[in-house]
Amino acid sequence: MDFEAFFKSELDGLHGEGRYRVFADLERHRGNFPRATRHTPDGPKEVTVWCSNDYLGMGQHPAVIEAMKEAIDHCGAGAGGTRNISGTTHYHVVLEQELADLHGKEAALIFNSGYMSNWATLGTLGQKIPSLIIFSDALNHASMIEGIRYAKCERVIWKHNDLNDLEAKLAAADPNAPKLIAFESIYSMDGDISPIKEICDLADKYGAMTYLDEVHAVGMYGPRGGGIAEREGLMDRLTIIEGTLGKSFGVMGGYIAASTALCDFIRSFASGFIFTTALPPTLAAGAIASIRHLKASPFERARHQDRVRKLRTMLDQKGIPHMHNPSHIVPVMVGDAAKCKWISDILLDTCGVYVQPINYPTVPRKTERLRITPTPLHSDADIEHLVSSLHQLWSRCALARHVA
Amino acid sequence: MDFEAFFKSELDGLHGEGRYRVFADLERHRGNFPRATRHTPDGPKEVTVWCSNDYLGMGQHPAVIEAMKEAIDHCGAGAGGTRNISGTTHYHVVLEQELADLHGKEAALIFNSGYMSNWATLGTLGQKIPSLIIFSDALNHASMIEGIRYAKCERVIWKHNDLNDLEAKLAAADPNAPKLIAFESIYSMDGDISPIKEICDLADKYGAMTYLDEVHAVGMYGPRGGGIAEREGLMDRLTIIEGTLGKSFGVMGGYIAASTALCDFIRSFASGFIFTTALPPTLAAGAIASIRHLKASPFERARHQDRVRKLRTMLDQKGIPHMHNPSHIVPVMVGDAAKCKWISDILLDTCGVYVQPINYPTVPRKTERLRITPTPLHSDADIEHLVSSLHQLWSRCALARHVA
Repeated sequence: MDFEAFFKSELDGLHGEGRYRVFADLERHRGNFPRATRHTPDGPKEVTVWCSNDYLGMGQHPAVIEAMKEAIDHCGAGAGGTRNISGTTHYHVVLEQELADLHGKEAALIFNSGYMSNWATLGTLGQKIPSLIIFSDALNHASMIEGIRYAKCERVIWKHNDLNDLEAKLAAADPNAPKLIAFESIYSMDGDISPIKEICDLADKYGAMTYLDEVHAVGMYGPRGGGIAEREGLMDRLTIIEGTLGKSFGVMGGYIAASTALCDFIRSFASGFIFTTALPPTLAAGAIASIRHLKASPFERARHQDRVRKLRTMLDQKGIPHMHNPSHIVPVMVGDAAKCKWISDILLDTCGVYVQPINYPTVPRKTERLRITPTPLHSDADIEHLVSSLHQLWSRCALARHVA
Repeated sequence: MDFEAFFKSELDGLHGEGRYRVFADLERHRGNFPRATRHTPDGPKEVTVWCSNDYLGMGQHPAVIEAMKEAIDHCGAGAGGTRNISGTTHYHVVLEQELADLHGKEAALIFNSGYMSNWATLGTLGQKIPSLIIFSDALNHASMIEGIRYAKCERVIWKHNDLNDLEAKLAAADPNAPKLIAFESIYSMDGDISPIKEICDLADKYGAMTYLDEVHAVGMYGPRGGGIAEREGLMDRLTIIEGTLGKSFGVMGGYIAASTALCDFIRSFASGFIFTTALPPTLAAGAIASIRHLKASPFERARHQDRVRKLRTMLDQKGIPHMHNPSHIVPVMVGDAAKCKWISDILLDTCGVYVQPINYPTVPRKTERLRITPTPLHSDADIEHLVSSLHQLWSRCALARHVA
């Protein structure tokens, strides 16, 4: 087989569909976020980033920056090993305590990414608990889907956020089989929020564990940034809360918070946890500083929500269609892969606005969109510039407007 | 089902077998590696680390430290998104160029860990190339095994480093099926080295791609630290070289180096690459500095090999049995899980020597060992102290000696 020709032909397929991804080569500027320099063949250009998951701008917060540099000065670069073989530093221990406290759980366990925390935890539970059935929301993240596949246990997909469908499927399953319901609080691409309380009620009724992915909520919701479950007073009803250090906390890494026995079980049996180098102490130190800051400071959360409201209001005034949802994610709908890419390219090249097009398979075809994520650091002028740029492009592309 | 009781009973099983892992809570000291402070319930204690995979001590190298701090000052903490959605920074672009150059390949692709690079690359190749058969060495790392399982393609396990068995299995397979041979250069637990040239010869004969994991070799072997394949002049014969930034380069992360089309293919189709937050710029910056330093400096490699020779000689003088191999990994064989843990505990508690016991399932039962990894920073006095501590314990535990 001519392997090179095969790879090229598969890539040609992506080009043909307008789905080939080109990564923008950015240089973020500490103290000047959301501004960044974009490196192009024609030289550097200044842009405003409108699609970052550093939702609160904590990636440039002085407390985080100082903690990271201090940890490097104190103990060096990497952890030097797996958690078991010389890679556990005191920063890891403290970070896990901080996360357990954030979610009101007995314990927490850190992974190198949110992807890995979902994959390893769901996979290990499904492989090790005899006859476990995992009930998975139809729109769960790729990492949860892969984890559930990895588990090789029975899996039941229930309609997205549909309590009737979930209950029907729980009721139809073997009443004696152990069960786990896996879902998210905020779904990344539509920004909708799941009925956590009602799902927990069903879990209680059918004796199921609950696994809640809060990666798009931690830091941003709840009085201490514990997520939607904290905001709604439901943390104690969830068996496992999964989160990330790489979005609103501004660093990188994933985690679960749960009972001591459950975390110890995953720690002891999950291949993806055991056989991998630990997070560098500097990332743990940065995460600790970020979590502590957001536990105590409501300012970023309030300003974040204010920016989201402002953007939505201005989009409505111009009739730019965006998906209504109760979160901070503002999906501006285009509904055509080529146009979505084209608008994004013009925004980047001529308006200094960077917002990546979101196409299939991340979202279904014909729902292609610009996923806009305002941060507390976007000014009124930034929002006005974004909306007026979109307004002009909507006319140029003859795209449908929404009449309020 | 009582889930908590289930988790506890599974953990009790590990305790009963002496396989329950207790992580040492360490505080590394920049400028003073391999010394570290161990946090214990009785207060802090000083230890010398003898089991780190920061093989060359690059985790505390001034060039790496300065590059990391500079990147934090320049652009902040995290990348703020996936590589596609605002998470590609100029540091990532430069690091991938640096890695491609290190291995003499057209391109490279970074992942958040070596585990993920193996899992995602092998999994994606196996899923996407129709009828691919992966021929996997029996002792491949857990992450390669999981990646090959994830691939769901046909897999053939060949006897560890056994060319006759590999050829017999290649010859028995469908001659028209596309094939991939997956193996490592240095195997982590035994420290033995694979016959790379002969495996490439077989790959050529049977039209197979080759996938070589060099995580325990990059930085340490070859004139520029390109690994065993570089040392033996074989880099151009390998389709894919996989490596890590988390061992001899002292930071964290994994990568593949290969043709432009192959890297682009994995970049475009691998779930574990696409749907995860990018490495923080500071880690990319630290890795760039480390790779550049080790490309130009033979000092660390020469001193490393010198320390390994010194340790082996002194162990031989005392008759402490260690597995002979041509690498830098020194497995001191105990052959009993409980004794292995016991020796390790005494070394840690009373001798200030930290070397984690390696038990099943990381190694087969009855081959339990202390896996010792000398670094350029271990002094003659450190080696003498380690060997004399082992010597005393060998007598106390009535363990067999090796007569030279």
